[in-house]
Amino acid sequence: MLPKASPLTIAAAIDFGGTKVAVGFIDIAGGVLASTQFATPDGGPAEVAKSAAKALRTLSRRLELNLVSLAGIGAAVPGLADKANGVLRFAPTQGWRDVPFAAMLSDAVGLPAAIGNDVNVSAMAEHRYGVARNCSNFLWITISTGIGGALVLNGRLFEGPRSLAGELGHMAVAVAGPRCGCGHAGCLQAVASGTAIRTAAIERGLTVTGGREVFELASNGDPRAVEIIDAVHFHIGLALSHAVNLLDLDMIVIGGGVAGSLDITKLAKEVLAHVITLPEHTPAVVRTTLRSEAALIGAGLLAFSRREDFAE
Amino acid sequence: MLPKASPLTIAAAIDFGGTKVAVGFIDIAGGVLASTQFATPDGGPAEVAKSAAKALRTLSRRLELNLVSLAGIGAAVPGLADKANGVLRFAPTQGWRDVPFAAMLSDAVGLPAAIGNDVNVSAMAEHRYGVARNCSNFLWITISTGIGGALVLNGRLFEGPRSLAGELGHMAVAVAGPRCGCGHAGCLQAVASGTAIRTAAIERGLTVTGGREVFELASNGDPRAVEIIDAVHFHIGLALSHAVNLLDLDMIVIGGGVAGSLDITKLAKEVLAHVITLPEHTPAVVRTTLRSEAALIGAGLLAFSRREDFAE
Repeated sequence: MLPKASPLTIAAAIDFGGTKVAVGFIDIAGGVLASTQFATPDGGPAEVAKSAAKALRTLSRRLELNLVSLAGIGAAVPGLADKANGVLRFAPTQGWRDVPFAAMLSDAVGLPAAIGNDVNVSAMAEHRYGVARNCSNFLWITISTGIGGALVLNGRLFEGPRSLAGELGHMAVAVAGPRCGCGHAGCLQAVASGTAIRTAAIERGLTVTGGREVFELASNGDPRAVEIIDAVHFHIGLALSHAVNLLDLDMIVIGGGVAGSLDITKLAKEVLAHVITLPEHTPAVVRTTLRSEAALIGAGLLAFSRREDFAE
Repeated sequence: MLPKASPLTIAAAIDFGGTKVAVGFIDIAGGVLASTQFATPDGGPAEVAKSAAKALRTLSRRLELNLVSLAGIGAAVPGLADKANGVLRFAPTQGWRDVPFAAMLSDAVGLPAAIGNDVNVSAMAEHRYGVARNCSNFLWITISTGIGGALVLNGRLFEGPRSLAGELGHMAVAVAGPRCGCGHAGCLQAVASGTAIRTAAIERGLTVTGGREVFELASNGDPRAVEIIDAVHFHIGLALSHAVNLLDLDMIVIGGGVAGSLDITKLAKEVLAHVITLPEHTPAVVRTTLRSEAALIGAGLLAFSRREDFAE
C-alpha cells in the first residue's frame, strides 16, 4: 500500500519525446509507484500537457491517490529548458520555441510544475538513485535516435551558461564522415546514433528498419554490420575519451535506446585507448541502472527539489 | 615607489620548467613589480628552490623590500600539484615524484609557501587580472613544447577529483597520426605542440631548429610548412571545439610559446566549424593578455589566496 499519510513524498512525473509520452508517480526514494505511456498526441505542447494530465488522473484513481495533494509535477522535456521560468526554449525535433510548459502542465494537472532537460534529469536521477549514487564527477550519455549528454561535476549538474553543456552528440569525431543534421561534418550523432546506424546499414545495402537489427546482424557475423558496429564503438569511445581527458571523470553512465545493444567492455577499451589516467584509477564505463525510467524518475526529482540540486 | 607600509600586498613568485626559472614580486593588483629569470639549475628541486631564493634576495635588495615581511611565496610547478600538502606529485619532464616543494621553498626563502600547477595558475591569473576577468566559464590552453589546459567553471578552477582535468594535450584528434610520448596515438600534443611542429617539419625535409621557424616558412609560402601549420590550426581548433560542445564555454584563452605564432582568427574559424552555439553567442577565442607572465602572476596569486580560490 501507498503511504497515504504523506502525499508530499510522492510526485507526478512526465517524460515526453517525439514519439511517446510516459507519465507516472515517483516516490521520494526514487521508486516508480506506477507509470504508463502513450503515443505523443498531435496538436502541440498544450495537447501533451492535457493528455498527460488525463493519464495521470486515471492512474491516480487506480492508486487511490489524490492528485492535487502531491508534492508537485516535474517534466523531462526534449530540448533546452529554462528551469527558472519553466519555459521550454527550444525543442529541436518538434521545432517548438519558448513554450511555457510548466505553466501549461500546472494548469492541466493542478499542481506546481517544474521542467528540466530530459538528459540532465536522467543524470540527476542516476546520481541520486542509480549507479552514480556515490559519484561526484560523471558524464551521462543518452544514445538513442540522437545523442546527448549531461555532466555532474563536484556533485552538481553542470549545465553551462547557456544550458548547452553536454553536447557530445555534436563532437566532431569523424570529420571525414557524414554530415549531421546540425550542418556540420562528422558529429558523433551522425555516425553513432540509432538513426545513423540505420542509415549506414541501408547505404551498405543491408535491409533493416532500425539500428537494433544492425547490432543483431553484426552479432551474427555479417561483415558490413560488423564494420558499422565497430565504428560505432570506436566513435562513442573517442568522444567519451575527450570528456575524460578534459574533466578527469570518475564514471561514464550510458543510457538511451541504443545503450542495451552496445558492448560495454569493448566501449570501455575504446575509451581507455585515448585517455590519461593514474595507475590507481581508470574511469568506470557502465550502463544506467534506472534504464528507460531514468528520465521519468528525474522528472519526479525536479518536483521534489526545485530549489536544491537543480538551481545553480 | 613601492608601498612599503603594506608588504602583505606583495608576494614572491616562482615559475619554473625544464629550461628556465622565473622569479619575481607580484602585487595584489596583479602587477609584476620586478622579475628575472635564469637557466634551471641541475641538481633537482632543492637546487631550484635555493637558486630561486637567492635570485629573490638579490631582487628584493634592489627594490628595498624586506623579503620575509611579504605575504608569502607561490610557485607555479610543471606537473601534478597536491596543493593541500604543497607536494609536487609528478613532474613528467623532470621525472620528479612526490617532491615537498612548498616546504623546500619555505625553508629556502623564509616565507609561507604554496604551489600550484603552472597551467592552472595561469588560468587563475587570467581570470583575476587578464582577458577572462569577467568570465566565469573558460578554458585556458598552453601551447608550448607540450600542450596543457585548465578550466574555470562557474568562476572557480575545476581540477577534477585527481587534478587531471584539462588534459587537452592528450585528446586524440588525429588517431591516424603520430604516436605521443604518452604511448597513445594521435594526441593533440603529438600534432600541434612546438615539438611536434618541429618534428613534422624535419620529417618533411625542412631545415629548422624549432617550431617558430616553421610558422615563418609557412608565412613565406613554403607549401610543406603551410600544410603543417594548417594542420596545427585544424587540430587545435578541433580539440577546442570538443571542449566548447562539452562545457558551453564563454571563452578560450590561448597561452604558451606557440600562442604568439598562431593565427587566432583562423583558429576561431576552426573551432566554430564544429560547435553547437546559440545565434546570440559564439565563444571568444583570444590570446592571453598576461602573456609569458601569466604563470608567474598566478604563482603570486597562490600566495595571496591559499584559502580562497585555490581550495575546492
